[in-house]
Amino acid sequence: MLKTEPNIFMGCECAPQNADVILFSAPFDSTTSFRPGARFAGKAIRDNSYGIESYSPYAEKDLYDLKIADVGELELPLGNSARALEMIEARTHEILQNGSKPFMIGGEHLVTLGAVRAVAKKHPDLHILHFDAHADLRDDYLGEKLSHATVMRRAHEILGDGRIFQAGIRSGDADEFAFAAKHTTMCKFCLGGVEKFIRELNGKPVYLSIDLDVLDPSVFPGTGTPEPGGVSFQELHNAVLLLKNSNVVACDVVELSPHYDHSGISTMAACKIIREILMVL
Amino acid sequence: MLKTEPNIFMGCECAPQNADVILFSAPFDSTTSFRPGARFAGKAIRDNSYGIESYSPYAEKDLYDLKIADVGELELPLGNSARALEMIEARTHEILQNGSKPFMIGGEHLVTLGAVRAVAKKHPDLHILHFDAHADLRDDYLGEKLSHATVMRRAHEILGDGRIFQAGIRSGDADEFAFAAKHTTMCKFCLGGVEKFIRELNGKPVYLSIDLDVLDPSVFPGTGTPEPGGVSFQELHNAVLLLKNSNVVACDVVELSPHYDHSGISTMAACKIIREILMVL
Amino acid sequence: MLKTEPNIFMGCECAPQNADVILFSAPFDSTTSFRPGARFAGKAIRDNSYGIESYSPYAEKDLYDLKIADVGELELPLGNSARALEMIEARTHEILQNGSKPFMIGGEHLVTLGAVRAVAKKHPDLHILHFDAHADLRDDYLGEKLSHATVMRRAHEILGDGRIFQAGIRSGDADEFAFAAKHTTMCKFCLGGVEKFIRELNGKPVYLSIDLDVLDPSVFPGTGTPEPGGVSFQELHNAVLLLKNSNVVACDVVELSPHYDHSGISTMAACKIIREILMVL
Amino acid sequence: MLKTEPNIFMGCECAPQNADVILFSAPFDSTTSFRPGARFAGKAIRDNSYGIESYSPYAEKDLYDLKIADVGELELPLGNSARALEMIEARTHEILQNGSKPFMIGGEHLVTLGAVRAVAKKHPDLHILHFDAHADLRDDYLGEKLSHATVMRRAHEILGDGRIFQAGIRSGDADEFAFAAKHTTMCKFCLGGVEKFIRELNGKPVYLSIDLDVLDPSVFPGTGTPEPGGVSFQELHNAVLLLKNSNVVACDVVELSPHYDHSGISTMAACKIIREILMVL
Amino acid sequence: MLKTEPNIFMGCECAPQNADVILFSAPFDSTTSFRPGARFAGKAIRDNSYGIESYSPYAEKDLYDLKIADVGELELPLGNSARALEMIEARTHEILQNGSKPFMIGGEHLVTLGAVRAVAKKHPDLHILHFDAHADLRDDYLGEKLSHATVMRRAHEILGDGRIFQAGIRSGDADEFAFAAKHTTMCKFCLGGVEKFIRELNGKPVYLSIDLDVLDPSVFPGTGTPEPGGVSFQELHNAVLLLKNSNVVACDVVELSPHYDHSGISTMAACKIIREILMVL
Amino acid sequence: MLKTEPNIFMGCECAPQNADVILFSAPFDSTTSFRPGARFAGKAIRDNSYGIESYSPYAEKDLYDLKIADVGELELPLGNSARALEMIEARTHEILQNGSKPFMIGGEHLVTLGAVRAVAKKHPDLHILHFDAHADLRDDYLGEKLSHATVMRRAHEILGDGRIFQAGIRSGDADEFAFAAKHTTMCKFCLGGVEKFIRELNGKPVYLSIDLDVLDPSVFPGTGTPEPGGVSFQELHNAVLLLKNSNVVACDVVELSPHYDHSGISTMAACKIIREILMVL
Repeated sequence: MLKTEPNIFMGCECAPQNADVILFSAPFDSTTSFRPGARFAGKAIRDNSYGIESYSPYAEKDLYDLKIADVGELELPLGNSARALEMIEARTHEILQNGSKPFMIGGEHLVTLGAVRAVAKKHPDLHILHFDAHADLRDDYLGEKLSHATVMRRAHEILGDGRIFQAGIRSGDADEFAFAAKHTTMCKFCLGGVEKFIRELNGKPVYLSIDLDVLDPSVFPGTGTPEPGGVSFQELHNAVLLLKNSNVVACDVVELSPHYDHSGISTMAACKIIREILMVL
Repeated sequence: MLKTEPNIFMGCECAPQNADVILFSAPFDSTTSFRPGARFAGKAIRDNSYGIESYSPYAEKDLYDLKIADVGELELPLGNSARALEMIEARTHEILQNGSKPFMIGGEHLVTLGAVRAVAKKHPDLHILHFDAHADLRDDYLGEKLSHATVMRRAHEILGDGRIFQAGIRSGDADEFAFAAKHTTMCKFCLGGVEKFIRELNGKPVYLSIDLDVLDPSVFPGTGTPEPGGVSFQELHNAVLLLKNSNVVACDVVELSPHYDHSGISTMAACKIIREILMVL
Repeated sequence: MLKTEPNIFMGCECAPQNADVILFSAPFDSTTSFRPGARFAGKAIRDNSYGIESYSPYAEKDLYDLKIADVGELELPLGNSARALEMIEARTHEILQNGSKPFMIGGEHLVTLGAVRAVAKKHPDLHILHFDAHADLRDDYLGEKLSHATVMRRAHEILGDGRIFQAGIRSGDADEFAFAAKHTTMCKFCLGGVEKFIRELNGKPVYLSIDLDVLDPSVFPGTGTPEPGGVSFQELHNAVLLLKNSNVVACDVVELSPHYDHSGISTMAACKIIREILMVL
Repeated sequence: MLKTEPNIFMGCECAPQNADVILFSAPFDSTTSFRPGARFAGKAIRDNSYGIESYSPYAEKDLYDLKIADVGELELPLGNSARALEMIEARTHEILQNGSKPFMIGGEHLVTLGAVRAVAKKHPDLHILHFDAHADLRDDYLGEKLSHATVMRRAHEILGDGRIFQAGIRSGDADEFAFAAKHTTMCKFCLGGVEKFIRELNGKPVYLSIDLDVLDPSVFPGTGTPEPGGVSFQELHNAVLLLKNSNVVACDVVELSPHYDHSGISTMAACKIIREILMVL
Repeated sequence: MLKTEPNIFMGCECAPQNADVILFSAPFDSTTSFRPGARFAGKAIRDNSYGIESYSPYAEKDLYDLKIADVGELELPLGNSARALEMIEARTHEILQNGSKPFMIGGEHLVTLGAVRAVAKKHPDLHILHFDAHADLRDDYLGEKLSHATVMRRAHEILGDGRIFQAGIRSGDADEFAFAAKHTTMCKFCLGGVEKFIRELNGKPVYLSIDLDVLDPSVFPGTGTPEPGGVSFQELHNAVLLLKNSNVVACDVVELSPHYDHSGISTMAACKIIREILMVL
Repeated sequence: MLKTEPNIFMGCECAPQNADVILFSAPFDSTTSFRPGARFAGKAIRDNSYGIESYSPYAEKDLYDLKIADVGELELPLGNSARALEMIEARTHEILQNGSKPFMIGGEHLVTLGAVRAVAKKHPDLHILHFDAHADLRDDYLGEKLSHATVMRRAHEILGDGRIFQAGIRSGDADEFAFAAKHTTMCKFCLGGVEKFIRELNGKPVYLSIDLDVLDPSVFPGTGTPEPGGVSFQELHNAVLLLKNSNVVACDVVELSPHYDHSGISTMAACKIIREILMVL
């Protein structure tokens, strides 16, 4: 049959209007300070998703049995952070209006801010569960308020104290760690505190934001700012499995920069963790 | 609007039923004898087509103003050449039935055989214009009759003497050159004879088959069997421009193996030559 | 002295007729469904074997003190799985006739089937110890019975229930895991069950088949289908050391695709694990 | 002697206050629409400049005999084009005030606008000699006025008709070529018209802006938007040699994106053309 | 301000005469037997040091608060090991005379010998703490006494028995392990014995020599001789943290060969471990 | 048949004692000043020689019809230039004694000196035909007399004035060009003068030394010191074809550094030019 083919993450073939979860990607990396290229993550992840199976032997479920849609990439104005965030917020809002959970593939970490703005409007008691190597709590970066390095600081301005849980953090300046000590909950160097955090949330709405550089660079070399000493794939996977007992209302996976990893293992790690998150949403 | 996105070559957005030209790709490389990976060409070309313009300053036309459809990739059984060729023949036949010209993106060169079978049925006086570094005229390769190295020999069995014009050929064994001397017309080492060949064709139906390794490896490193001493991009482009005066009824562009060229220039060369061919079809 | 040089794995300089173990490689990857290139493994492993030492501080032995021959690469017909398997079976049979243990370097995993056929004829009560990320238990793959994804299913047809032990498996479809539950013994996600399996074998003949993608992609990125969440080099090495107490009669190491790992660490991992297996054979 | 070492282009060791020419780099690439990474050009060029000789056998001069200073990299705010351009303008102004000619290493092509602003203030009858694959004459790009794709349009707003000569252009949309026909002088596809242009200038002040993607991608693969069909190194070099007879008052060389070329030949091409330009300034 | 920029490791901006620690690099790799390129380590480490933070959340200190100078690269005669070692010895002596601790970035491991010669003159009871995958205890390598593979044997000739502690060693020939059993203290395969060794040193002067290939190749692929089965970044980091209780008088970090790791994670690992060592010196 | 396989350049299967030409490789690169790795050329060339045909459509001959032997790699002491040269001289002498022409594959260019010493003893009126980007006429390099950068200066000391013809030279310092003006014959920038030189030689014995970096870096990126502005493959090939009329008594092809070219086109260029030289010897 002669027809055009869709360009979607494996198994996410549900019609958008019926979907429980809707994937989209936000190919933006203009504020990346070290190595750009996170804009290419959406395409790489969709292409390579067919290199893993749709069935998860961990969850014993198949993506094709779930109701997930993939609505593709936003076309974002490179070099204009403010407008890009507005477009992300609008897309997220639209998905929430559709009664679906948004699942955003970055792009750099700044894109999270657009989605958080939309989700926080719907869920005023929103909490953020943030896995990352970097604290992302600067007030500005080289004078810019909107930056991958400031995204959790901006999110804190929306949500306030006690709402952000950060895990795996192993890099930042002294001020960021001081800010965290007062305003967020932080589990340094590992993901050890995640179980307790989820238990205490007790069903409150959670925005899950995974900066994949929380993984050790050996597992995930294809990222803008690799930071040695990270967690293994299994540790991240186990933390994701804990989310079965939580109320995740939105999610993002950011900071894959595929051109820096010619072996492609970073993209495969992103694909598999996305599949596993989709299994617990 | 929440909808899935198509995965097409830039500017080829026509509905298939109305299209003058229909693109598809044939991701097959099981008989590749040196470096496999031509299966990845279709995806790479579609993705990177957005890195060039849809407007050609040479032709002074825009792809968006032409009626071209892209119907995506065939799903071919790796390791089974005979069945893969049948599926390619069927797809080509379907496109011809639709009243459109087929434009196939390889894959390895063997895929040409499937398309030629279908086109020769519709156009019994079909001629082949074959640009390549290699003669591809072996009778068998390690005992196999169906191979990238035998494809023009098999085509000759369908079309007979005097129907195949080969240009740019600079590699083969002694038997292949002896065969060519008797049964095909061959312009060795360059594309010099193309103009005369097209003039003599005088409007007869032509199948254009471009093995991109006709280009010099400096221009096109990402291929299975790079052969030093090839033509420049401009020389190939000029040969394509000559086709304005010919009756090309079907076409293929084969042997991009994108993983062997991390700089991506081979894929860009493929994209641009495809755009320029689309301009003259 | 002016003489041609052999092309062998470091330290495997024994004359074939006197060898306890005979190495050969099977450069075949025509059914690889994701990223081809396992055909290059034999050459890469031989070349880079000189980058490690012939002495093992774990086994406290030196390859030069063992009787091992390397008889090089088979010349296999790409694109013809059936014929390739026959040639592998013939080579394996020849080695067994010589009174030696065959040690095959793949190639994709399908090559195992050729060797198993020959070994099972000599050892009717043969068991297979299979380390892999993937179950390889499909009945067919895109309609093909002979595929890297079906190899253990085909082996099961030869050997029957209770003869195949699979460890490290973390990928497959639902049917494969259902098949395994009935017909093979499977240790999912890790190599934990290997010790018990070897103990229970109690000296019965074992064919050891290591798909190196059982290793985590961080350790072994150069493979056709990297699957995140695998075992460490030490875990695989420890499992190999357990084999000292078993009766391994033949062995293969497959699925290194060296071109996908420019750092070369995958090839080094293959070289070292091969050395360590040779120490326990 | 224990002292810190400078980080400069080979042979550019003059004290800034005495320099005839002052080099600096502008590591900005936030508006790059295809492949980012031009921010890394300055560092790559400085490091690799020691891989060529300071002596030019073409000019028969040595960089060490000229008065050239290298004052390093600007620290530019990624994601904020307007502010970055102000900082570039300020640095260029400072160099002109010092009585030196500014030589800027990009970064993406947008950086040219900052330098042109400063130079046009000092030289009201400034002309631009622009070598590029792309016309860069859009009025906006995805709604943004400041973009690498609009830089010559913005420059035209400053300088007016008849002041911009463009050579080597082989990509753009229909509107850009229409704009060029009315407002700039354009030599399409090659550098053929440069000699005539320089002759007609007759000593008027020239800003030379070389987007290195004017080179064929075979010669210069490491760039954001490789466009097949470009000029050879010798053709670009010859065009540069013609400048001996002109009054170049400022210069830039932009769009090296070194991470896309692991062989490093793009960086070497940039280094050598910079050396040769320095010889004719 | 128009001035040339220094080329230093992030945060090491102290004037040399006031520095507690002085960094320099020794770009020598002429005796590397497998994959050369350690000569590029110094440049890569300086460039990429800006990709991590100057603040350590482990030590809760900032490099900018310490007194560290970076005096750049030695210019060493490639192919002349003896003269290169003399120059390294002279530079190390000069730093010691300045009252500072030398911190050398290799280069291949042979460079350690030059520094040890100078340090041993000042500290006759010097001990070496040696982290490495390889024993480096050969008496000669292909007839050469000065080689990366003999460096600890040469150091033993200076210091004598009981002065060298080796950890992480997992490769060598039988003679090297026999030599170690008699003349050095060796912790094979891991870093387990470091704590006890440091305790027993009881404040005696230590030269710390880290061959980064002690790390697992997954963590550190960019090295001359990757040896599978190494330690994790956290294990090496923990061993470094133990040094707070010791008297390290000089240090080197060697064998990064950055061109073999396009992802750059090896260089980042080197940068971070250097920062962490600087925190404990 | 169970036997070990030789490791030779395609088609060079003659027994050494009967061979007209004997190939060997000299894997030495210790004095390389920019990017090492020429040591890997011999292996890469042998492996990839099977990617071209043994038949040359230019010469209309097949390698299998000639009497050529390949005796493999020398084992050279890295870091000891003097001894390495002695071993190369000995091997070359041995081949000449055998009545064969030596054909050496480098390695860096310094290896030429060892071979020239042996050949000049047999042919006192030896001339050198030297194709290169670099003059290689320094008296010393960083104080070393034996260096890739001094090799033609050392050869001149053996042969004297008027014996060395250099073509394609486009890099060197002022002193080297001054030396050439007095003591050698130099065709700068191209290969134009080769025909005249060969005619004037009138049958005198010629040592042909091809530093492959004479090729443009686009054609040959995999080399230690790529120098933009070189000749095309066809230009080099044509120069080689001219040698049919000359008396080449020995030959080398040097400076392939294959690890710097992941696309492999440099190695293919080396293989093809070696085949074509073998056709005219």
